[in-house]
Amino acid sequence: MPAFPARLAPQPRSVAIVGGGLVGSLSACFFAKRGFQVDLYEYREDIRRTEHVRGRTINLTLSARGQAALRRLGLERALVAEHGVALRGRMVHHAAGAGAGALTAVPYDPVDNQCIYSISRRYLNEVLLTATEKYPNVRLHFRHKLVAINFKENQMTFQVGEENSQVQRSASLVVGADGAFSAVRRQMMKAPLFQYSQRYIEHGYLELCIPPTADGKFAMAEQYLHVWPRGSFMMIALPNQDCSWTVTLFMSFKQFEALDTTKALLDFFGQHFPDALPLIGTERLIKDYFSTKPSPLISIKCNPYHVGSSVIIVGDAAHAMVPFYGQGMNAGFEDCLILDNLMQQYNEDFSKVLPKYSEIRNKDAEAICDLAMYNYYEMRDLMNHKSFLLRKKLDNALYQIIPKLWIPLYISVTFTSEGYSWCLKNKYWQDKAIRAVLGVFGMIMLLVVVLFIFFFIHAIIETPCKLFIVPEL
Amino acid sequence: MPAFPARLAPQPRSVAIVGGGLVGSLSACFFAKRGFQVDLYEYREDIRRTEHVRGRTINLTLSARGQAALRRLGLERALVAEHGVALRGRMVHHAAGAGAGALTAVPYDPVDNQCIYSISRRYLNEVLLTATEKYPNVRLHFRHKLVAINFKENQMTFQVGEENSQVQRSASLVVGADGAFSAVRRQMMKAPLFQYSQRYIEHGYLELCIPPTADGKFAMAEQYLHVWPRGSFMMIALPNQDCSWTVTLFMSFKQFEALDTTKALLDFFGQHFPDALPLIGTERLIKDYFSTKPSPLISIKCNPYHVGSSVIIVGDAAHAMVPFYGQGMNAGFEDCLILDNLMQQYNEDFSKVLPKYSEIRNKDAEAICDLAMYNYYEMRDLMNHKSFLLRKKLDNALYQIIPKLWIPLYISVTFTSEGYSWCLKNKYWQDKAIRAVLGVFGMIMLLVVVLFIFFFIHAIIETPCKLFIVPEL
Repeated sequence: MPAFPARLAPQPRSVAIVGGGLVGSLSACFFAKRGFQVDLYEYREDIRRTEHVRGRTINLTLSARGQAALRRLGLERALVAEHGVALRGRMVHHAAGAGAGALTAVPYDPVDNQCIYSISRRYLNEVLLTATEKYPNVRLHFRHKLVAINFKENQMTFQVGEENSQVQRSASLVVGADGAFSAVRRQMMKAPLFQYSQRYIEHGYLELCIPPTADGKFAMAEQYLHVWPRGSFMMIALPNQDCSWTVTLFMSFKQFEALDTTKALLDFFGQHFPDALPLIGTERLIKDYFSTKPSPLISIKCNPYHVGSSVIIVGDAAHAMVPFYGQGMNAGFEDCLILDNLMQQYNEDFSKVLPKYSEIRNKDAEAICDLAMYNYYEMRDLMNHKSFLLRKKLDNALYQIIPKLWIPLYISVTFTSEGYSWCLKNKYWQDKAIRAVLGVFGMIMLLVVVLFIFFFIHAIIETPCKLFIVPEL
Repeated sequence: MPAFPARLAPQPRSVAIVGGGLVGSLSACFFAKRGFQVDLYEYREDIRRTEHVRGRTINLTLSARGQAALRRLGLERALVAEHGVALRGRMVHHAAGAGAGALTAVPYDPVDNQCIYSISRRYLNEVLLTATEKYPNVRLHFRHKLVAINFKENQMTFQVGEENSQVQRSASLVVGADGAFSAVRRQMMKAPLFQYSQRYIEHGYLELCIPPTADGKFAMAEQYLHVWPRGSFMMIALPNQDCSWTVTLFMSFKQFEALDTTKALLDFFGQHFPDALPLIGTERLIKDYFSTKPSPLISIKCNPYHVGSSVIIVGDAAHAMVPFYGQGMNAGFEDCLILDNLMQQYNEDFSKVLPKYSEIRNKDAEAICDLAMYNYYEMRDLMNHKSFLLRKKLDNALYQIIPKLWIPLYISVTFTSEGYSWCLKNKYWQDKAIRAVLGVFGMIMLLVVVLFIFFFIHAIIETPCKLFIVPEL
């Protein structure tokens, strides 16, 4: 760790980043590139020097928004091309069984065949931390845990290491990139008019693993995110570069509790995931399942994202979401990009940049939090329904015919940089349009029926007239 | 303050109440009555020995739920009969002006003429604190600010007085009755699966005053809560025992900011509250308005209300609400009553009482938070609409005819002890019933029209037949 000069008043153009995870280290790069003196404080050890980091290990998927941020820093190629596994769609494993007929491939982008990338969280974090060190104006401080912030003087108190020694640090801007349980946000919550909600869903997750085959290959088609939708629960699998699969089981804590014996677990897998069971392996399943507890899933919304012109939160600290749209990291990276754009636009004037960031980012962040929640329902339940798959096909067909007018929700969220709230509104508009078309079609049908009845009645009414008339002629 | 024995392990049957406000002191009485050793910790001075307490000063209205709790402790008579000002309805001051014709009295209960009571928060708090002292097993500890709770050992750390001296205390049950910004709840938030939301509305409030008349009487009809509904903002007035009125102006912070000169303020009052302006007095209005800042209004929901079998939160700590249904204190008092009922039912077994309390209380508390939010809309806007006043009349008429079947929302919330969620569901059912009746009525009308058209067409169709026939006869 570089020596840290003792000072109390913040240097002008100094930025303190709290949190050395993905978004924190990316944010450090952005500010360093602009020439700020950047100090990054992380409460854990340097992960590049530890063997295993406990934490959120759900596999990450990188898509357009995240890639755009990496691209501006010249980091995209190294990460995506060399270390990502391309995914071109979902592979749905239907409840029926393991036969070939029980699989449906649902492409993400049937028109341009765009893909997302499965990538290891740890690898990505290591690359980004190393990227910060390429800037001479970045200093990394590990084992620094934020205890308090004095907003008036922009002074932070950190607990250093295990012992109870505390240090005071300051900066002209504090960036809270310290995740869903952000200490920076906890300090902000004391300010009046801070809107906040945290919601744990009733479901948790537990990670399992499918190893490579005996000849070192992928055990399933690797260009897909595999999904076993089972209505009230689901399992997914994401490929790793070493040909293994990270398998995640999502279900209610009650269901997890009910599977408390080896027999119950094997019966459950035999019934619901018969094709996955042999791939995971009975022994490994039992070991992995019973050695870990299911983890909770939280969704966090708050507003504003800044205090005055000196503190701001980004990434999960501002908008933690459930992982079902694969957008958590991408949204966090996009935060950094948007912040950088605003820094450009407002000539690095924090008093303008920060309020503008809160204003434009909040509605989009809340939209993706809602979309992520919705996507769980789509993935675990709707994917089972023929009407839903039909709608997907209709969306894709329209997208093929009028790609500028009809952008399906998944495409706009994953492959464009349109605001998330726009994507949501666009979907509402599409739903309305489809309902309107169906409505007009229904009306025409009704009109046809009414006209038919009218002519039928008319014919009947005319007939007796004639019947009466004819005999009298 | 009585001497406090040094001990670390909690005594069995000992209860620590955090917060000596209304709900805290009432809760202390309930536990003391059951024979528990009760220690009440309040971070302020003893309000009975201070001149003025800053804090939330919106006048309180006591209604059936609060009265029921006081009644069980034998406190109702002293408080209600001797110190409450009975309110029998709302008096609506229409925007038109100050003439007699511009007032509409809307009774709370036109059938049984039940009333609610306007009462001073401070007086009520003093009476309740004194009530706790009648139990020899209650000890009061002022200037004790909760800093932390160790949930495993049920140990609390308090900062005592101004200086930085801390003491450790413990109890077999900790009751957090420390208000909307509860320190107990802040500790609970760290536990997994704790649902939480805090929402500040865009509007704030500012208190003004109408003094008694020169001959010491009320300046307006005193049996009413006076309301000046103005669509996007409103003013209300509640009578005090000394014949003065506490006037509260509710509007958006932006509107408050816009009224930043004496002229703007007087123009605004002259335009919107011409009848109130002379009662408040120009000089007093200017002084009161510019000497205080508008205060924010917060709504808080969380779940569960307990941790294990040793910590529980009640009152605003569990469910702070906006003040528009006059139910904040009543709901808090009802919490104490329900907790007492459960203590009876489960033989004072905290491991059963606490989860049950969370389970049954949460849905009702969330319902009243929602209702309070809705009632702001009703009071400031709907009260202006003839259709709304007509619906009120319809509700009251039906209540008069079928009082067991048709209980209007306000009546059920204010004058019954039905769960708040039941009140809300009952209102939905009534809305549905009215819509259904209107729907059936509409269908009948449509049928009449269709039949009329049918016979009309039939007549026309028959006519030409006859026309053709007649000449040929």
